[in-house]
Amino acid sequence: MSFAYLTNTPLEQAREEYLKKLEERGFGPRTEKIPVREACGYLTARAVYAAINAPHYAASAMDGIALRARDSFGATETSPVTLAPDRFTVVDTGDPIPAGCDAVIMVEELLRHTDVSVTLHAPAAPWQHIRQIGEDVCAGEMILPSFAEITPAAIGACIAGGVLELEVLAKPLVGIIPTGDEIVAPCADPKPGQILEFNSSIFSALLSGWGAETRVYPIVPDKPELIRAALQKAAEDCDMVLLNAGSSAGRDDYAAAAVEAEGELFFHGIAIKPGKPAILGCRGAKPVLGVPGYPVSGILVLEELLRPLIDLWYGRESRKRETLRARLTRPVVSGLKYREYVRLRLGSVNGRIMATPLPRGSGVVSSFLKADGMLCVPQGTEGYAAGEEVEVELLTEREKLERTLVVIGSHDPLLDELADLIHRQDRSMYLSSSHVGSMGGVMAVRRGEAHAAGVHLLDAETGSYNLAVIRKNFPKGGVVLLRCVGRVQGLMLQKGNPLGIRGFRDIAREGVRYVNRQKGSGTRLLMDYLCGREGILPDQVQGYEREELTHNAVAVQIAENSADAGLGIYSTAKLYDLDFIPVCEEEYDLLIPAYVRDSEPVRALVRTLKSPEFRERIEAMGGYTLDRPGEEIPLYGE
Amino acid sequence: MSFAYLTNTPLEQAREEYLKKLEERGFGPRTEKIPVREACGYLTARAVYAAINAPHYAASAMDGIALRARDSFGATETSPVTLAPDRFTVVDTGDPIPAGCDAVIMVEELLRHTDVSVTLHAPAAPWQHIRQIGEDVCAGEMILPSFAEITPAAIGACIAGGVLELEVLAKPLVGIIPTGDEIVAPCADPKPGQILEFNSSIFSALLSGWGAETRVYPIVPDKPELIRAALQKAAEDCDMVLLNAGSSAGRDDYAAAAVEAEGELFFHGIAIKPGKPAILGCRGAKPVLGVPGYPVSGILVLEELLRPLIDLWYGRESRKRETLRARLTRPVVSGLKYREYVRLRLGSVNGRIMATPLPRGSGVVSSFLKADGMLCVPQGTEGYAAGEEVEVELLTEREKLERTLVVIGSHDPLLDELADLIHRQDRSMYLSSSHVGSMGGVMAVRRGEAHAAGVHLLDAETGSYNLAVIRKNFPKGGVVLLRCVGRVQGLMLQKGNPLGIRGFRDIAREGVRYVNRQKGSGTRLLMDYLCGREGILPDQVQGYEREELTHNAVAVQIAENSADAGLGIYSTAKLYDLDFIPVCEEEYDLLIPAYVRDSEPVRALVRTLKSPEFRERIEAMGGYTLDRPGEEIPLYGE
Repeated sequence: MSFAYLTNTPLEQAREEYLKKLEERGFGPRTEKIPVREACGYLTARAVYAAINAPHYAASAMDGIALRARDSFGATETSPVTLAPDRFTVVDTGDPIPAGCDAVIMVEELLRHTDVSVTLHAPAAPWQHIRQIGEDVCAGEMILPSFAEITPAAIGACIAGGVLELEVLAKPLVGIIPTGDEIVAPCADPKPGQILEFNSSIFSALLSGWGAETRVYPIVPDKPELIRAALQKAAEDCDMVLLNAGSSAGRDDYAAAAVEAEGELFFHGIAIKPGKPAILGCRGAKPVLGVPGYPVSGILVLEELLRPLIDLWYGRESRKRETLRARLTRPVVSGLKYREYVRLRLGSVNGRIMATPLPRGSGVVSSFLKADGMLCVPQGTEGYAAGEEVEVELLTEREKLERTLVVIGSHDPLLDELADLIHRQDRSMYLSSSHVGSMGGVMAVRRGEAHAAGVHLLDAETGSYNLAVIRKNFPKGGVVLLRCVGRVQGLMLQKGNPLGIRGFRDIAREGVRYVNRQKGSGTRLLMDYLCGREGILPDQVQGYEREELTHNAVAVQIAENSADAGLGIYSTAKLYDLDFIPVCEEEYDLLIPAYVRDSEPVRALVRTLKSPEFRERIEAMGGYTLDRPGEEIPLYGE
Repeated sequence: MSFAYLTNTPLEQAREEYLKKLEERGFGPRTEKIPVREACGYLTARAVYAAINAPHYAASAMDGIALRARDSFGATETSPVTLAPDRFTVVDTGDPIPAGCDAVIMVEELLRHTDVSVTLHAPAAPWQHIRQIGEDVCAGEMILPSFAEITPAAIGACIAGGVLELEVLAKPLVGIIPTGDEIVAPCADPKPGQILEFNSSIFSALLSGWGAETRVYPIVPDKPELIRAALQKAAEDCDMVLLNAGSSAGRDDYAAAAVEAEGELFFHGIAIKPGKPAILGCRGAKPVLGVPGYPVSGILVLEELLRPLIDLWYGRESRKRETLRARLTRPVVSGLKYREYVRLRLGSVNGRIMATPLPRGSGVVSSFLKADGMLCVPQGTEGYAAGEEVEVELLTEREKLERTLVVIGSHDPLLDELADLIHRQDRSMYLSSSHVGSMGGVMAVRRGEAHAAGVHLLDAETGSYNLAVIRKNFPKGGVVLLRCVGRVQGLMLQKGNPLGIRGFRDIAREGVRYVNRQKGSGTRLLMDYLCGREGILPDQVQGYEREELTHNAVAVQIAENSADAGLGIYSTAKLYDLDFIPVCEEEYDLLIPAYVRDSEPVRALVRTLKSPEFRERIEAMGGYTLDRPGEEIPLYGE
């Protein structure tokens, strides 16, 4: 367990110096010759000149006859001119103009006779309806300047000008070397301790979008000499090299040493989070980067440090993402030492953009999947308070935000099905859901952060669901409750119930590993209600403090024998093939701020809740009852 | 010469009815299964659920030790806890958590002893630094909904979730059938009458940008049975078929009949220009389009009628181009019968966007190359006057307009070299030039349409260049004149001078085919000046009325034996290997409105004019003298 030294160079400084060092060493684009028909999107490496004229012969621009214009002079409606067949030639569009002819008359404008002569009622202007040689492009003329993007029309102009091959800026070839003893090729049944090598797939897709090509090398075990050999080979084959991972300073991290041994090591440790243990180096004029193993770190290091190299290669300005102002729904706490990147879920509710921080773990690649925006907390800043307005980078289209139903509240897998159905039924409509528990949903609705909150709120006094708690929280009204589903809550147990658990009381038994839900969730309220009823104290439950955020996450711990029991809904128990002891039935409804009741996203929600497809999906999941979903539940007065 | 009937259906009507008929016949996307690592950019065909948990085992999130949290309880700075080796396991990031352990302590936070025990100064919270099973994705959870775009992060999440193959919307395969007896595969030495088949390359590049794949079939001659057979084959292989061309109603236009015979013909003739003879039909549920042969017509028909089919395939909204208001520098006259598309060159001069219509010939593919904008003149509108403000669609980026030096005036091939050099010297800077002659340039500067005008203006009274004419046109100043080059004008003659032309007088000889420049060009002024001096009348010059817009275009007619003589500059004669009889030396300078003298584009121009690279290029072209290019010529007073 060695612990090597990592520097903490600020991002801008590292990037600037890195680019400068690479340029000094001759880093720059390769050029290559490719067939023009494959060149769309490439940049020309130098100016392109036409080799031939286009058109390369004087051509008729119409179907009609070619003639000597002067033979038609004097023709009018009242004194037509008739030409014998030897004074004209029938031509179609594109036909060459016969020698001696200098005009074309359209077929619509002449009268043909059976003896093959024609009569004209108007004179032809010299050179009318003739495409002159070089009308489009003249031989020797510049068709495209240097570093011009090759468009479909440019391809046409090049071919017309006789240019069939173009010298272009080659796409930089980036070699990706996955390293690590524990890394295995993607499969559907990895063993514990094996990590699926998906970074190279993410990186390849990213790089391809930036205009690079990638070559992924076989996985290299954590052996310094093998890593060095792989680096050497990739630097020979490619224009840039990524070592992934081993970029940190742990006992099996050999990337930095390999870069230093095979080339130059400029930086090891950049003041960004995630992404800190990045390595910037080169071999000759070829950049070599060490990229951390966690996918989120890797993506950020590529965005911030590799993408600028590709921009430099192409000589283009770095693209800036669109930004907007958004209000944070939760605080963001950040360390002073790093520039921190926080993925955000964005929602537009009643014209205000709300930003909810997503899980910041650098292993959570799905956080990128859910992210609509990114918040950069600058180095030296401690973060932001909830409710603060911040500038965020958009990762999606602005318009999509306006067409997204924001659901914040209690988790139920049906929300994913709902998201799918809403979008299937109206392709311009989206649903995004965050799981913060029922009470979190009530708060989100109160603060105007959501269009809807999934709630199942047990009122401990009355034992009833939702109505009492909502009336208590919104005594003056201002909210609407939509029927969603009834569902069965119960104890999820390992398949076959190996511990012989017979009821809720048994979770306090010695040797039963319980897994709980987070505070504020409806299921946690239920747990605490049941404990109170049964006289069970938290201390008596092993794992009371172990919290998961969703029914699925609880079920997974049980299915994988990391726990023995947890409260959850029947559909989830069924999905994970767990045993299930029903505890109660509850109502899971959707709480909606009254002022968005008629917004487009909420109208789409109601349509989908009422659709037969929703019923079909929910019934297939099991453990739900459906009673007029999408209808309003009278809250007050009635 | 038959003349079949073409309808004139308004575009919107045709498009709407066509889409409806296709949907009725079952037109829609195919799906296919592809490896997830190749799926970036595709849309999911259905919701994607995780097959396994990610992580699939409880893993250490740090390098350190795994332990039972309770064994660390009570540890503080003052009362540390020491653990014997059997109470913990050394773990690296990603290692599985051993059975019985429920926390990880980072290597930085513990003290190791030589006897392999460790000392802790703080307790571990249960489950700290452990990545729980399913933390990223739980098995059975929806990773992606239907019709979601697959991003790099989504690829990572899918692989992490054990999903290695995805069902996606296949790219529609569009079969392109080039037809025509005169069509030949691209080559560098076509014979007269042969037309290079470049449309399929343009179309393939366009379609690829819209998310389609293409298959280009061999060229089919104008034989109805062969066209029908090719159509049948392509409709079997592909999702859509393009017949190109033969879509008109001339004697060799068999496309409409083929569509009718092999399927259904809905429309033949759309009220757009260019593009009128388009054909909309189908074979079963597969769209079959007949596309006119001229590239500009073809591009427009694809944009307006094929692209919506691809949007329908993907279920996406049709993308609208950004629009802006611009002032027309010339009138646009349009027929009432059609919706007309006019390509425009756009320039931003002193904060105003100016739009100059480009040549409208539908064979002029280079007009698309030069176009920054498109003006749609609606059906039923006669057009617009010069100076009118119109709404134009942007074909380029808004920002690029602000970084483009607009040069309008006399043609010289050096302008292309200048454009290339300016962009090479500053990749964010562009030059666009339009050739309207010296007097046209003076007018453009006066109207504020250009940053610079190339001028070589002979004052007939004094025989001097530029100064006198500019003073006359700008008596109150407001302009600046920059030195550019001296150049030699003369008679360009066919190689070897077969007609034995000895001087300017000879252009009036019987049998000499002259080719002139357009009115308002400096070279035309010179021509008329010389004619006056020599007592030659226009009628005496055969071809006096034949006008070309550039030196190159004149030279090409002579080089290709379509003319015998024309006035032009030495560098052009040299480029086309023509004989040359010098007539005079002239000054070609750049006239600049004073108020843009300090604009960024003009500063870039001056830098480039003064650069050694400019001198090098110009000297290589020949026939120029360079005397302090880029310096100001005093116009007034001095």
